[in-house]
Order: sequence, then C-alpha cells, then structure tokens
Amino acid sequence: MIPYTNLSKEELQNEFEHVRIEIERSKELGLNLDISRGKPGAEQLSLSSELLSVLRSSEDCFDGTIDARNYGTLTGLPSAKSFFADLLGTNPEQVFVGGNASLQLMYDLIAKAYTHGLKNSTLPWSRKGNVRFLCPAPGYDRHFKISESFGMEMITVAMTENGPDMDAVEQWVKDPDVLGMWCCPKFSNPDGIIYSDETIERIAALHPAAPDFTVIWDNAYCVHEFDGPFIPFPDILSLAEKHGNPDMVYEFTSTSKITYPGAGISCMASSKENIEYITKLTSVQIISYDKVNQLRHVRYLKNKENVLKLMQKQAAILKPRFDAVLYMLEEEIGSLGIARWTKPKGGYFISLYAMNGTAKRTVSLVKELGVTMTGAGATYPYGKDPFDSNIRIAPTNASTEEINQAIRILCLCLRYSALEQLLKNLL
Amino acid sequence: MIPYTNLSKEELQNEFEHVRIEIERSKELGLNLDISRGKPGAEQLSLSSELLSVLRSSEDCFDGTIDARNYGTLTGLPSAKSFFADLLGTNPEQVFVGGNASLQLMYDLIAKAYTHGLKNSTLPWSRKGNVRFLCPAPGYDRHFKISESFGMEMITVAMTENGPDMDAVEQWVKDPDVLGMWCCPKFSNPDGIIYSDETIERIAALHPAAPDFTVIWDNAYCVHEFDGPFIPFPDILSLAEKHGNPDMVYEFTSTSKITYPGAGISCMASSKENIEYITKLTSVQIISYDKVNQLRHVRYLKNKENVLKLMQKQAAILKPRFDAVLYMLEEEIGSLGIARWTKPKGGYFISLYAMNGTAKRTVSLVKELGVTMTGAGATYPYGKDPFDSNIRIAPTNASTEEINQAIRILCLCLRYSALEQLLKNLL
Repeated sequence: MIPYTNLSKEELQNEFEHVRIEIERSKELGLNLDISRGKPGAEQLSLSSELLSVLRSSEDCFDGTIDARNYGTLTGLPSAKSFFADLLGTNPEQVFVGGNASLQLMYDLIAKAYTHGLKNSTLPWSRKGNVRFLCPAPGYDRHFKISESFGMEMITVAMTENGPDMDAVEQWVKDPDVLGMWCCPKFSNPDGIIYSDETIERIAALHPAAPDFTVIWDNAYCVHEFDGPFIPFPDILSLAEKHGNPDMVYEFTSTSKITYPGAGISCMASSKENIEYITKLTSVQIISYDKVNQLRHVRYLKNKENVLKLMQKQAAILKPRFDAVLYMLEEEIGSLGIARWTKPKGGYFISLYAMNGTAKRTVSLVKELGVTMTGAGATYPYGKDPFDSNIRIAPTNASTEEINQAIRILCLCLRYSALEQLLKNLL
Repeated sequence: MIPYTNLSKEELQNEFEHVRIEIERSKELGLNLDISRGKPGAEQLSLSSELLSVLRSSEDCFDGTIDARNYGTLTGLPSAKSFFADLLGTNPEQVFVGGNASLQLMYDLIAKAYTHGLKNSTLPWSRKGNVRFLCPAPGYDRHFKISESFGMEMITVAMTENGPDMDAVEQWVKDPDVLGMWCCPKFSNPDGIIYSDETIERIAALHPAAPDFTVIWDNAYCVHEFDGPFIPFPDILSLAEKHGNPDMVYEFTSTSKITYPGAGISCMASSKENIEYITKLTSVQIISYDKVNQLRHVRYLKNKENVLKLMQKQAAILKPRFDAVLYMLEEEIGSLGIARWTKPKGGYFISLYAMNGTAKRTVSLVKELGVTMTGAGATYPYGKDPFDSNIRIAPTNASTEEINQAIRILCLCLRYSALEQLLKNLL
C-alpha cells in the first residue's frame, strides 16, 4: 500500500474506481452493525449476575441500623459512601451517592446552578448575562449537550496528549463569564488520554475570576484499564483544597461500566461544604436515592481491590475487541496516510482522525452500508468538528467478527472519502 | 367529660393544673416516638421480600428483546409502562417510567419549566416576572417546598370535603401568572379526601389564561385503601383531553408505598405530546432510569389485580394502627370540643384540627415529651397555617402500643394548649 498523497492523478482515479466497486458490493451484504456508543456487551453484563440476588431477605437489607428499603439517608448509605471514597481516593464525608446515572448528578448540578446558584455563586446562572464553559475537545458529547441545553456559550479548548491545553485554560478562567469546565481525566472520551500529573496540578491551582467556577471532573473510567495494571491517579479534591480551591471541583463516577449501565450506582464527591449545600437543595427534589441498589452493589463489589479483580475480567473481554479494531485499521489503511488513531490502554473508545474534511462524509457512507457510528462532529461543542476529522469507534458491544466487518467498511469509506477529496483538490 | 367551653374559670384552672401534673409525670417516661412521616413500617416492607430476588440470571433481565441491564429505553420498559397504565387507567404510550421517586419526576418537571419551559410555554418560567401556583391546603409539605424552592408565589386554596374549592380555582386560573396547581386527588395528604367526580370534571374543564398551566396530579395513594374495597377513580387525562386540555395534566404515582419507599419505581403520565417533549429534554439528563428495578417490579407485582391483593395485606397491617389513633382520640378528647379529626379509608394520615391558635404550641409540647410529629403548619404554603390548627398524624411506622402512647401524649398536650388559650382569653 502506497500513501495516497504519493499517487498520481491516474492512480488515484483507478483506486477510486476500485473502492467504489467494493463499496457497491458491500451494500449487498445488508449489514446492520452498531459501534456508536460506549455500551458494554452481553458477556460483560453477565459477569455480575451475582449482583441480582446478593440481597434476598429483609435482614439482608440493613446497612448497620439503616433499613435500605425505607425513606431517608439522602446522601447515601454509609457503606456506599465508603465504597466510592475507596474507589476515588477521597473521604466518605465528601461523597454523595446517587441513583443509576452520574450523568443525572452532573445535569442536576448544572440545573441547580442555573435555578438556585452554587455555594459560592453571587447569582443563579440563569440571571447571568452570559455563561461560558470550557470544553476540552474532542470530548464527551453528552457533556456538551448539557451545556448546549442550558444555552451556555461553549469554548473549545484543544486536547493535548497530557490533557486540555492548560495555557489556554489558564487564560480563559480570567474571564468572569467562564463558569466551568468539563473534564474526563482518565481515559478521556474519546481520545483515551490520561491527564498528566502536571495538568492535574495546574487545574487544581487555577485562579478563576468567577467565585463559583466549577470543574466537572467526570472520572467515568477511573478503574477501566483493559490493557495492563491499574494506573494510580491523583485525588483532585485534596489537590484543589491544597491550592486554596476547596469548592472548585465536583468529581463523578459510577458503576455503569463496572456492573450494569442501566442499573448501577453513581456518586458525586466534592468539598464537605459543597456536599452539604447540594444536599440541602436536593432534599426538595428527592427523599433518597435507591439505597437497596446501593447496598446490593456494596455487598457484591465489596471494595476497590475486588472491583479491580472484576475489571480484569472485563479487560479479558474488551482487549480482543480493541485489538481487532487496531489490527484491522493497520491492515486496511495503515500505510495510506489518510488517518491516524489512538491506541488506548483503557476506557471505551478508539479515536480516529481522518483526513481533514472527510469525517462527516465517511460516517455518512458507513451508515449507508449498514454500520452505525457516533455522528462525526459529536465529540465537539455544537456537534461541529472544526477540522471535520474525528471519528469515535466504540467496539465494546460487538463481537470481534462484527468488529472486523464494521472496521473493514469504515476503512473502505475512509479511503473513498479521502480519494474523493484528493481528486477534487486536483481539479 | 364535659366540653371545655362549658367549664367555668375555676373548673378550667383545676383541669389545667391536673393536665400540667400529668404532663410533668409523662416527661419522666423518657419517650422517643416518631409519628411524623408517612413511612411504611417494617412489617409492610417485609411483605415484598420476594421482590429482591425475582430476577436471578441474565436471562431473567430481558423485557422482550430489551436487556434491562444496559443503557437505553429512556421512557421505561414496555412492560413497566403497561403496568402503570393498568394501575392508573391510562395508555402505555402516555406513561414515562422513572426512578425510585415520583417526587423527583415532579421536581424535574418544574425545574425544566423554569430552565426550558414546558411544551406550551411562551417563555421559560425563570424569565417570567412572577409565577403563581395554586396550593390546595392543607396539603403535602413536599409539594409546597418545591414551589418555595423555585421562588413561586403560592396561593392557598381551601380544601373542602370534595377537594379544592373549585369556585376559587376557576377564578384564579384567569390570572395569566397562575401557572399551575398541586393536587393529591385520592386520599389527599393529609386530609384523606377523595376528590369528587364533579371536582375532577371541573379541574379537567378549567379555562386557564396561561397556555402552559400545569396540574400536578400526584396520585400517590391510587390503590392505597386500608379500610374497605378499592374505590375506582376517574382518569383525569382522558377527561382533560375531552375538555380540550390534553396537555394540562401530569399525573404521578409510584410503588413507594406498595413495595419499598426507598427502592420502588415511579411514573409520570400525560399527553403523548407532553411525554415526547419531556423525553427530549430528559435525554440530556439521563440515558435511562433503572430498568432492572422496573423489570423486578413488573415481574413481582404483575398487574393491578395482583397489586390490589398486596394492598389488602398492607391494609391488614395499617388498619389497626389507624383504628388505634381514632380510638385513643375519641377516648381521651372525644367530648372536650377542642379538636376534630378525619376518619380516612385510605392513604397515610389522620388530619387533626386543634382549637385555632394551638397547633404549634401542641406540637412543641409533644416534642418536649419525646414524640416527634410533623411540624405544625407544614401542611400549608410557607409552613404557615393561617388558623394554626392542623396537625398531621402519621401512624404507619409505629406499633399500636407506640401509637397508644404517642396519641395519649398528643391528647394531653392538646388539652394543655387549649386550656392555656381558654384561660388567657378569660383574662
């Protein structure tokens, strides 16, 4: 395989004709594959069937003297707080345990910032003229959707191999309209980047102009290594406190990709004072989250050590899928010079960068051939990738056979759209 | 026992001295009783232990082709929608199944009205100059807390034995600032009133000035008879549609007092269009609610008929507790003319009306003697009972022995504060 940029016009035309025919043929396969979302597969879910019946009797439902079945204990069962504190390396009194979705906790935090203001807010955000939010990109589309839904002005910050471009972040936070920042610090969605210790320290040490500047620290993949051992990760909360920013960071995680995405438990961790403030506001919204499910998880997962063992079983299921993607990409387009991609050690995605200006076209072609992928641009604020380059690959909920098929189709379409563009540029 | 109002000054003084001594003696009992919240007791919770392990394997977790453990199906499992539709007498496509708390669904509806506006809103409520909300009172304190938290102006509407004073409601809705109304239509909290068919029809037929006028129809006690058979109840949603108000009503219920208060499932029902609108907004907040718990409930509760059988078992536990309250009240203060109270057939409360101006004093005295009751005034907007009369009794989470003790104390304190007031008036 010769890099496309080294081909003559005639060679490009021949290659284009060849790829076009292959695509036509592939249409006849009538594929129906989905590698769009970071969704665990059936085999992963079946690892945790014991969770279903770990609580069987009335007596099983007590966490000390607390009956998990009844109303109350809004901030979560003591054992569930300890569990998450262990997982994240923070203190139980800094933990608020929620329902089945950390996304809901994040959304509700932003919603309350808008309707009521956060602890250090001078005004509810809905009364501020303009709310700007820093969005390291590419990033998690559902983060950006929350910002968009509330009408924030999203400021794109470039991602580097060490995390967000901190020179840019440090400049931006001088603007009093900049009220926060989305972060997915470990195995970032979609790039799989682990923020460097220096980046984490610089985030903890920010000097934002806004007193209620809010770092959403979505540590969704805190124990989600699928290749190699657990990588220890600094506790942002104590770092922020050390730097005089005790209330700046809200950390989130969940068991969505440890046990069940639809029926796990989630948590928010922050300063004791933030947790107290949010608990008071939340007491109007809900009497308590599902504590039976909290107890179910604590009894089943036990502690971080035991979670890491479970994650090794998950890894054994996931690694072959990621390997299949990487192998196929290398085989099919490795030397064509039309794309580069990440080789993550954890998380749920491979992030591919196609030739600028070809991502949308590629994903649309792929769709025509029966393969659903995350919409091109989704990983950027407002769904607009300035380079039209990033494509997110989510291989977890497909068999290696399906992955092989899907990535073959993806590569075919990457070639097609690259050739189309190269030929157009020659005109 | 002679009515206090028939006593001479001297007789009142003697009685006061007698009650004072009895109260002093009761302090020595060192009681620690709680009849403050509508909380099921341990015996009720144990009725549903089968729920805990009704799902045991991966195969058990499928609702048709949907894997309840995984992401997706935001509006709820089809079987869970059908279950609630059966319970409420509406259609599955009008049902949105949530998490463990209908309160959260109500709060989130109001929150979204503030931040985004409802389907027929011309503006998000946060941008309206003034938001007024009708509060039939006495009512549920947590409803009023939501209104208060969002800074609504709460308009108290009197409760009659047939539901809210509809003449007043029909007048108020002509005001375009009046954006909604709280309703607990069956076994209302705290009075245990069942709205009459005429009241329900008049609510369905309202002509509000505000296009997004919102009736919160909290049908929390829809199957919660503890004395006598299930009482059929009209479907407000089809009535509202018939009267040209398809989007006006949002109905809520949950299994909090059918299975577990802390770990049940909840639902919101409204027009198909409202559900679509809210689903779109909610898709930014959460990927899906806990569908495993939805499926657990469907498999365990099966259908309305089976729920009614379970509620008969609950009734057998609850009725003796309500009977104990009624018996003690009658015995201790039945003929003193210092209080009247409700005799409900369902729901979770007995609502007592003390002599005007004595409720706060009574509940405070009761507290000193070691009995916790709902704060006087809590059943009114802003926690202010204009008559300082209503006291809510919640006997479900206490033994009949504890109830006897608690109500004896309550009656003693009712007598004390009544005598105190009568004597003061004589000065």
